[in-house]
Amino acid sequence: MKAISIKNPGNSEQLEIKEYTIPKLNEGDLLIQVKASAVNRTDIMTRENKQLAEPYPILGVEVAGVVVENSNNSDNQLVPGTRVAGLVNHGGYAEYVVMPSNRAIRIPDNMSFESAAAIPEVFLTAYQTLYWLGELKPDETVLIHAGASGVGTAAIQLAKKMTKARVIVTAGSNEKLQFCKELGADKVINYKEEEFDQIVLNYTEQKGVDLILDFIGASYWEKNLTSLKIDGRWVLIGVLGGAIVENINLGKLLQKRITLKGTLLTSRSDDYKAKLTNEFVEHVMPYFEKDLIKPIVDTVFLLDDAAKAHRYMEDNKNSGKIILKVED
Amino acid sequence: MKAISIKNPGNSEQLEIKEYTIPKLNEGDLLIQVKASAVNRTDIMTRENKQLAEPYPILGVEVAGVVVENSNNSDNQLVPGTRVAGLVNHGGYAEYVVMPSNRAIRIPDNMSFESAAAIPEVFLTAYQTLYWLGELKPDETVLIHAGASGVGTAAIQLAKKMTKARVIVTAGSNEKLQFCKELGADKVINYKEEEFDQIVLNYTEQKGVDLILDFIGASYWEKNLTSLKIDGRWVLIGVLGGAIVENINLGKLLQKRITLKGTLLTSRSDDYKAKLTNEFVEHVMPYFEKDLIKPIVDTVFLLDDAAKAHRYMEDNKNSGKIILKVED
Repeated sequence: MKAISIKNPGNSEQLEIKEYTIPKLNEGDLLIQVKASAVNRTDIMTRENKQLAEPYPILGVEVAGVVVENSNNSDNQLVPGTRVAGLVNHGGYAEYVVMPSNRAIRIPDNMSFESAAAIPEVFLTAYQTLYWLGELKPDETVLIHAGASGVGTAAIQLAKKMTKARVIVTAGSNEKLQFCKELGADKVINYKEEEFDQIVLNYTEQKGVDLILDFIGASYWEKNLTSLKIDGRWVLIGVLGGAIVENINLGKLLQKRITLKGTLLTSRSDDYKAKLTNEFVEHVMPYFEKDLIKPIVDTVFLLDDAAKAHRYMEDNKNSGKIILKVED
Repeated sequence: MKAISIKNPGNSEQLEIKEYTIPKLNEGDLLIQVKASAVNRTDIMTRENKQLAEPYPILGVEVAGVVVENSNNSDNQLVPGTRVAGLVNHGGYAEYVVMPSNRAIRIPDNMSFESAAAIPEVFLTAYQTLYWLGELKPDETVLIHAGASGVGTAAIQLAKKMTKARVIVTAGSNEKLQFCKELGADKVINYKEEEFDQIVLNYTEQKGVDLILDFIGASYWEKNLTSLKIDGRWVLIGVLGGAIVENINLGKLLQKRITLKGTLLTSRSDDYKAKLTNEFVEHVMPYFEKDLIKPIVDTVFLLDDAAKAHRYMEDNKNSGKIILKVED
């Protein structure tokens, strides 16, 4: 089968298409014929990781496709031919991949593979960070940074449609902000033109928000602290704005009684991902089936053009997901 | 009545004994004749607070004494003459003080007022940080810094006696460490002589601890990060080692999926303190009644010697609480 790995850790030119044997199943696994995969920041981090040992893995942590084989004989739901999407530990940029069967999300009949591949990573992350970690409640206000990103567009929809929370987002262009508004954001802030913390305070009667979803990290540290309510929660899921904060005043964390949670989804255990998927299927998939929540696809590239797709993400050009289509 | 406030914000010489009128009760309050109060870091912070507006408050956030009047007529438990201890919002360094009746802890018959005054602030804080914020579970390991401090000595006892958790403590003298051992600590570390993070890793088979109670802040930042397990929790309740951390790498918070909670008890709402007290009375006071957990009194000063007591705390000389006795 055709799949994409790297020549050496480094930039997007290191991506390489090679021939692999179709992966073997362990007990409980599905073999999936991949129809679409999607690009994630974690793929870029893997691509650049100088600590990585050879043989380098096939990239990609999520796919949509068709079940070819189910090694779990007692499972008569996921028979060959079933259309599923879900997280894989690696190997998504390929014609075939192995997926633990307890991570498979059945794709609604009216949904394309490209759209379905836009669901797992960002919607599971948004669900996990808003609810499991962020404990968002209906009457609360959430500040979502990078609102037009994959997780951002997922989080706006979940917070509005499932919780009816008040949603404030930041993004870097008026086009992106307009898009966030269409998805349901109540208040949008162009961080390049305005001081987001001051806008947040004014919008919340000087109280601040209950929850922040932060993909930015260092460069937003002080403003995030200012934007949070007393007893506020702050989930840190990325450091696009740098990882190193030069001067942190811990006294402010105490006085405001802030909870700060660092998190990554990819490194979580198989069991955690299975539980998260299970709850997600029950609580969120009905919204997709009724078209109340939509996967957000920005661009579809062919699998062969993965390097282009990586550069596109690195340029922050996307609103929503970047998909890799696998042709038959 | 006699009570202690400050002349001006500043050092311990600013403390001043003055005559006040006995405070008035609101609905639901108790009037307490104070028999003993206790010194807390928050008193020193109040004493030094240049933002404080006149008239300056009477210091003191906890007392033990006798109910003189109960404004809550439907409450026939806390009749005049009942011995109680508990948190007050301020005004503890005085002959009389007002306490919301839902914060009163009945003092066991076999316990002195001086011992009872050593309970509320540190044991409620230890209970709140270990369980409400830290979510400590029986098979877990907790690292308690400043083990011989008021909250430290309370936390060691709660973690061992109520939860049977594994307890590691740090302190700055072998005498203090010996004392922590007697209270039940499994492993003690002299932070002046050893690198505590390395000892913690060795003691936990390189896994790290599940929970850290941190009163130190900045100077321990990196070592705390190293000492924590993946998915570890870190409750920050003080910044004795400074508030400003230079060069924090947020990437580590993400990769280890750390939860960091800043907290203070004094600034919490009346309702929060009442709920905490209520749960504490139910779950912890039976241990005091059976003498399985002990209030730890280091030194008893007379109320008139509050300035001496403050200097004693500022010199970090105490193992356990510093009490102010109010003579009849």
